[in-house]
Amino acid sequence: MENSALPHIEYEVPVMFFDTDCGGVIHNLAYLRFIETARTIMAGQMGMRLAEMAAEGLYPVVLRSEIDYLSPGKFGDRIIVRGGVSEVGRVRFWVEFEVVRGEDGTVLAKSRQSLALIRMPGAKPERLPAEWFRART
Amino acid sequence: MENSALPHIEYEVPVMFFDTDCGGVIHNLAYLRFIETARTIMAGQMGMRLAEMAAEGLYPVVLRSEIDYLSPGKFGDRIIVRGGVSEVGRVRFWVEFEVVRGEDGTVLAKSRQSLALIRMPGAKPERLPAEWFRART
Amino acid sequence: MENSALPHIEYEVPVMFFDTDCGGVIHNLAYLRFIETARTIMAGQMGMRLAEMAAEGLYPVVLRSEIDYLSPGKFGDRIIVRGGVSEVGRVRFWVEFEVVRGEDGTVLAKSRQSLALIRMPGAKPERLPAEWFRART
Amino acid sequence: MENSALPHIEYEVPVMFFDTDCGGVIHNLAYLRFIETARTIMAGQMGMRLAEMAAEGLYPVVLRSEIDYLSPGKFGDRIIVRGGVSEVGRVRFWVEFEVVRGEDGTVLAKSRQSLALIRMPGAKPERLPAEWFRART
Repeated sequence: MENSALPHIEYEVPVMFFDTDCGGVIHNLAYLRFIETARTIMAGQMGMRLAEMAAEGLYPVVLRSEIDYLSPGKFGDRIIVRGGVSEVGRVRFWVEFEVVRGEDGTVLAKSRQSLALIRMPGAKPERLPAEWFRART
Repeated sequence: MENSALPHIEYEVPVMFFDTDCGGVIHNLAYLRFIETARTIMAGQMGMRLAEMAAEGLYPVVLRSEIDYLSPGKFGDRIIVRGGVSEVGRVRFWVEFEVVRGEDGTVLAKSRQSLALIRMPGAKPERLPAEWFRART
Repeated sequence: MENSALPHIEYEVPVMFFDTDCGGVIHNLAYLRFIETARTIMAGQMGMRLAEMAAEGLYPVVLRSEIDYLSPGKFGDRIIVRGGVSEVGRVRFWVEFEVVRGEDGTVLAKSRQSLALIRMPGAKPERLPAEWFRART
Repeated sequence: MENSALPHIEYEVPVMFFDTDCGGVIHNLAYLRFIETARTIMAGQMGMRLAEMAAEGLYPVVLRSEIDYLSPGKFGDRIIVRGGVSEVGRVRFWVEFEVVRGEDGTVLAKSRQSLALIRMPGAKPERLPAEWFRART
């Protein structure tokens, strides 16, 4: 899915009861939380020092989020989020992630998001540092 | 935004501290929770008896969700979700919602989602009851 | 439950699928979210201008929270949070809330929490303004 | 904190933006989510096959939860949950957890919870299997 020359991650999420609903499946919002967790951990690996950046008022923010729900996940499934940066512009970058059931490789959800680096207060976009988007070797 | 001949809603959400993050703004996932709340309340108004349906294994499920984040919302803002059903197919329907700051009408986020009526277990889509989509007068 | 001479509230919470889990009941953490919502709305009624206070670095914070889960709530139940301030000290106050099923009055959960008014950064407690704790008539 | 002859765990939680609030600190409800995550992972290590149990209608449920918030945690802190089973009765057991900042060992929150094993529907407590509470060596 991801361009392997760009940063990517594979992250296993422990699924909790609070991630499921009374329909017996993982709730649609939980998938976006799983993806945000994987994306944030990847950001650290990319060299974003999020806590220091936050102290200066710099935040990566989601501009757009798309997700397709393909198959229901359940409590007890081994849930893996995999994907990474798919495209990099001057002030915006795109990430693509799949949420996969580890036991059989079924893709449960696929998402695409665009993000920018914003300076608060004022929400002004900053130029993206090129070094974040170098592939790790 | 919504076709006024189709069901729609305007719903004010009380914004809590847990809806915000340390960037001082409403978190991206909270908007989707706000929209889900408005959509679920609208579903009741449309005649979906969700608790009875759930007891029979019938659930409305989100198939795809798109959201654009346009402007940051803050704790203390009066947050209004407005929108409704925009299109109805045989087994799938679409909803469109805006999240608006009540004080000045600024649109903070715009979303479009498709849903189906699913019978669990098995996740088979059911034909949508036409009476749900009659406009209320 | 609450001392009627002190501020109190009765608040109906719309229960969402994301408040339930695959056990078919409302999740234990959701009750605390319901209580926080009622407590925050009551705070506004008490005269706490939370957004203005936050802009100055003043926050009401929970110091201790106790909750007993007495009976399981379900999707479709009419959930009412009722209670209020039970005791006021110099820098700390206590609130007590019950979460009740509206249909039959069953108490699903009972909680007691203590809070203080904290100035950030530094987390120093401030003297509580007496006017917050006057009963509304 | 925990009786070392009883099951226990030490678990590092990745802190996300959605765990914090506009006060710049980790939100009080997030600590309880962190503890639930550690407790659920420990349950698996204790031999609770939660997904199989859920399929049979057996769930560990929280009966009572107490938490003291001692010091504010922040985004960027290394958050460790440590603790375990502290007492075992016939149908009820207790767990105690601390949430600690890894950088300096500061205890941010301390909690005590009691749980039972419940059969749904009906919410009847079951006798606790003794083998769950044997210490791992």
